[in-house]
Amino acid sequence: MLNKDLLQMETKDVYANVTEKVKAFKYENPNAEIISLGIGDVSKPIVKPVIEAMHKAVDDLSSMDTFKGYGGYYGYDFLREAILKNEYQQYGFTKEEIYVSDGTKTDSTSILELFDKSSTVLLANPTYPIYRDGAAALNRKVEYTTLDENFVMEIPNKKYDIVYICSPNNPIGNAYNKKDLEKWVDYALKNEAVIIFDNVYQGFVRSKDIPKSIYEIEEAKKCAIELRSFSKTASFTGLRCSYYVIPNQIYKDINVVWKRRTMNRFNGASYIAQKAAEAVFLPQSQKLIKENIDYYLENAKILREGFKKAGYEVFGGIDAPFMWVKSKDQKTSWQMFNYFLKELNIIVIPGIVFGLAGDNYIRISALGKREDGIKCIERMLKNEEKN
Amino acid sequence: MLNKDLLQMETKDVYANVTEKVKAFKYENPNAEIISLGIGDVSKPIVKPVIEAMHKAVDDLSSMDTFKGYGGYYGYDFLREAILKNEYQQYGFTKEEIYVSDGTKTDSTSILELFDKSSTVLLANPTYPIYRDGAAALNRKVEYTTLDENFVMEIPNKKYDIVYICSPNNPIGNAYNKKDLEKWVDYALKNEAVIIFDNVYQGFVRSKDIPKSIYEIEEAKKCAIELRSFSKTASFTGLRCSYYVIPNQIYKDINVVWKRRTMNRFNGASYIAQKAAEAVFLPQSQKLIKENIDYYLENAKILREGFKKAGYEVFGGIDAPFMWVKSKDQKTSWQMFNYFLKELNIIVIPGIVFGLAGDNYIRISALGKREDGIKCIERMLKNEEKN
Repeated sequence: MLNKDLLQMETKDVYANVTEKVKAFKYENPNAEIISLGIGDVSKPIVKPVIEAMHKAVDDLSSMDTFKGYGGYYGYDFLREAILKNEYQQYGFTKEEIYVSDGTKTDSTSILELFDKSSTVLLANPTYPIYRDGAAALNRKVEYTTLDENFVMEIPNKKYDIVYICSPNNPIGNAYNKKDLEKWVDYALKNEAVIIFDNVYQGFVRSKDIPKSIYEIEEAKKCAIELRSFSKTASFTGLRCSYYVIPNQIYKDINVVWKRRTMNRFNGASYIAQKAAEAVFLPQSQKLIKENIDYYLENAKILREGFKKAGYEVFGGIDAPFMWVKSKDQKTSWQMFNYFLKELNIIVIPGIVFGLAGDNYIRISALGKREDGIKCIERMLKNEEKN
Repeated sequence: MLNKDLLQMETKDVYANVTEKVKAFKYENPNAEIISLGIGDVSKPIVKPVIEAMHKAVDDLSSMDTFKGYGGYYGYDFLREAILKNEYQQYGFTKEEIYVSDGTKTDSTSILELFDKSSTVLLANPTYPIYRDGAAALNRKVEYTTLDENFVMEIPNKKYDIVYICSPNNPIGNAYNKKDLEKWVDYALKNEAVIIFDNVYQGFVRSKDIPKSIYEIEEAKKCAIELRSFSKTASFTGLRCSYYVIPNQIYKDINVVWKRRTMNRFNGASYIAQKAAEAVFLPQSQKLIKENIDYYLENAKILREGFKKAGYEVFGGIDAPFMWVKSKDQKTSWQMFNYFLKELNIIVIPGIVFGLAGDNYIRISALGKREDGIKCIERMLKNEEKN
């Protein structure tokens, strides 16, 4: 018999409806020059020093003396030590609290298995949809909290066991400041909740008042697990390598138990991806990666200003690659989607796929190519003039 | 609160006791020249045409025109098509029934999530321990069946929902023949059970009467999921790439549901590993891979004959890289382990880590280096003469 919990997930890939509608439009309009602002993937290739490290890693696998087989369940020491030294030592963590994995999609849903099955899960509305469907597949009870006027999750007036916070945020593109996070750490400590802090876009943070890590908040080590990835910063979306921190202070033996689980369910990330990840921390890589992210953030600036010029309210895109664009005229997000596709040949993501509260918004992305973004703005402004 | 199910797993890595005892022995005997016959990892490096494909894949990631980001949840079409063409078309499967993943450890435990949580699981005693601990972590009820005189799982007289069969077998090193598998397919069909057929050592099969796939058995498509990997055949233990087949015929919508689950829990195997896997099917790779496996099988022959000469009964090692060696004098498997370590400075795996029924056996492996195996035999025979 099939596991009924799996039937609780959304029927399809959240983007499936978008893909289908775009396909149908292309079929009817074979000559339309369609540009996607829906893209969640990166467009910049992997930087040179990381490419060189990968070539070397490939060569390691070609000879008996340097061959690497099973590499351990939690990641190679060389990588966990590099992560510790560059990112987590400053908060007092040890290597034993750091895990290397194959992607934050895997991590953000599997981590629920660490907690009792009766645990209740609180998500934002709108939310990154994987949290919702991952929780459904594992039969965890999910409820939602609305966002305040700054698009920050509102503190609920009851206890939840697990709270997902995504900052910098997908889909909205805003980022939580210190006060926002202090409020949530406080809630977690008072309610014995654990925060799953999805921090994969941390490389995009440029504003001074935005914490780069939840551990900048005092006592977050008692209540927060932080997830990071090389995907969106170092263009590892195809390479697959992520990492996360489980502080010893959350529960007694939390890492003993999670290591046992990981050992029995996973055989480690690819050696080549781990050698690549190690090279991400080289100063020459960091410089190039910062340039890539600056490119995306400049894209975001151009898009933000263009959409504003066209009369839209635009949120996010300062410390994150996404923007959240409000309808000018009470259109639903699918109506907005249709307008952009049919009138402008631009793909956007309707906000409702992230939750009901997203239904007057679309998500646009700055992860594409500069020239495509500029073309979109031109089309949009030209069309506004016409009307 | 921590998930109590995770506490059902064995306290430690199954090999942890072995590792600790070896460490203590080394500390007391720093000059001992220790050889491991316990090794479950491969020692041969990755073959040249596959290395070349990886260098090319690394270069693909270095330029904007050829960059590959997210590659889909179930594997690239180029790889699923190569797998289909080379291995599964002959049984009438389609690409949509094939999944590419990051390793059979992940697959063999995650697949339990496909089935209702009340499903009962039947394992062999002794068994590959990951099945046991993976099932415990997911709170599935596990029972065991004994092996017959040919080390084939005995058919139970009651219904189970899920049956794990590993052939060629780890730890015993034997392989199920057509009759053995027909018996189990028959059981599965009569009891509406699903067989999880762990087939990762299929590349080692040389005997004519041993099926290379469970789908050689008529009607297995109605009841069996087959798991394969590039790890032990093409030396991908560090690279991470596996694959499996879920036949549409098992349940209505089985693949619809599993695709939905996979999409929400996994973002695909590394592009480089998938390009490497594609190159495994090249004729020039196949030739070199066969030579590697022949090397291991020749190791197995030398070890088998050596252990026999030393008076042991030895099983397996014909169509698999492992052998199962029985105690000559009713020793327990830890006593055998101690004898080999202390008298001969050879590491073996005590059978009891695979289950109680393994307690008069040790597992030895042919995956190491030829010269090491020969040295072990010499030491053993010299010691026998002495006594």
